Amino acid sequence: MKPLYILACAGALLTPLGLAAATHAASDTAPENASPIFGVTIPDGYRKWELIAPALEADPLNELRAVVGNQTAMDAYRQGILPFPDGTILVKLAWKQKQSPEFGPATVPGAATTVQVMVKDSKKYPETGGWGFGRFVNGKPVDQAQHETCWACHQALVKDHDYVFTRYAP
Amino acid sequence: MKPLYILACAGALLTPLGLAAATHAASDTAPENASPIFGVTIPDGYRKWELIAPALEADPLNELRAVVGNQTAMDAYRQGILPFPDGTILVKLAWKQKQSPEFGPATVPGAATTVQVMVKDSKKYPETGGWGFGRFVNGKPVDQAQHETCWACHQALVKDHDYVFTRYAP
Repeated sequence: MKPLYILACAGALLTPLGLAAATHAASDTAPENASPIFGVTIPDGYRKWELIAPALEADPLNELRAVVGNQTAMDAYRQGILPFPDGTILVKLAWKQKQSPEFGPATVPGAATTVQVMVKDSKKYPETGGWGFGRFVNGKPVDQAQHETCWACHQALVKDHDYVFTRYAP
Repeated sequence: MKPLYILACAGALLTPLGLAAATHAASDTAPENASPIFGVTIPDGYRKWELIAPALEADPLNELRAVVGNQTAMDAYRQGILPFPDGTILVKLAWKQKQSPEFGPATVPGAATTVQVMVKDSKKYPETGGWGFGRFVNGKPVDQAQHETCWACHQALVKDHDYVFTRYAP
């Protein structure tokens, strides 16, 4: 019974923080691979989603990136709907950039680095613009400290685009 | 009747070059926006196809790129099938790269530049590794001289990957 008792305690401790905080937390029932704070997981089948846009991240990361979206995301982008509707999911794939061994002027994806996820759920994430964040390395979420940085940056820099950096590349 | 007569003449002139050459040529029946030499057109719906990989093309082009594929292409990539089967279509989207106005270290797509298409049809294109090529600006094919350069470069540099530069980025 001991583990069950501990879980019950953790739930009780969260109560004073209110519903929002409780649902933000990686709850007792959150999947093993859910992000801290937000409880976001890597969505099934995201690698087959449509491309929103590629990007390059300079030194020190030196990464090629591509952001893909689920159907709700793509519909919103193509119709110019802001804010993004609940159910929108954006996934950023990132790879170390490397020079093409076959064509010198080209930089191509090397090793995969991170997968980063944004989930729009205005009821679940009212304190972070309606967005939940997840950052994953090798399929596992990174630590809470890294997840604490997501919202501050998105909030500060892209408030006018519903806190989303990526634009659709036609 | 005059226009019809001219078309018939053009067809007759092509006959001595043989079947392969005749089908390679942008024939009388090719769509208006088909590429010279190969008769390749921009496939419907390609912007919704799955991502194979992003890339960056250095100075002087300075382009961000993304290569997408139809279902035949994606199946071949994921199953490691080489050569690519007939029916494979690859489309490369390209944009001028520009610094993100919101996040300094990031380079993002600017104006769209070219759309480039490779179509695998071993019967139609026996003299170019089974591939037909099309390079388009604003939906219109570029001139024959540019299309004459496609095969030489692909043949010289990526023979061991069925003449395709792009690898799948997982």
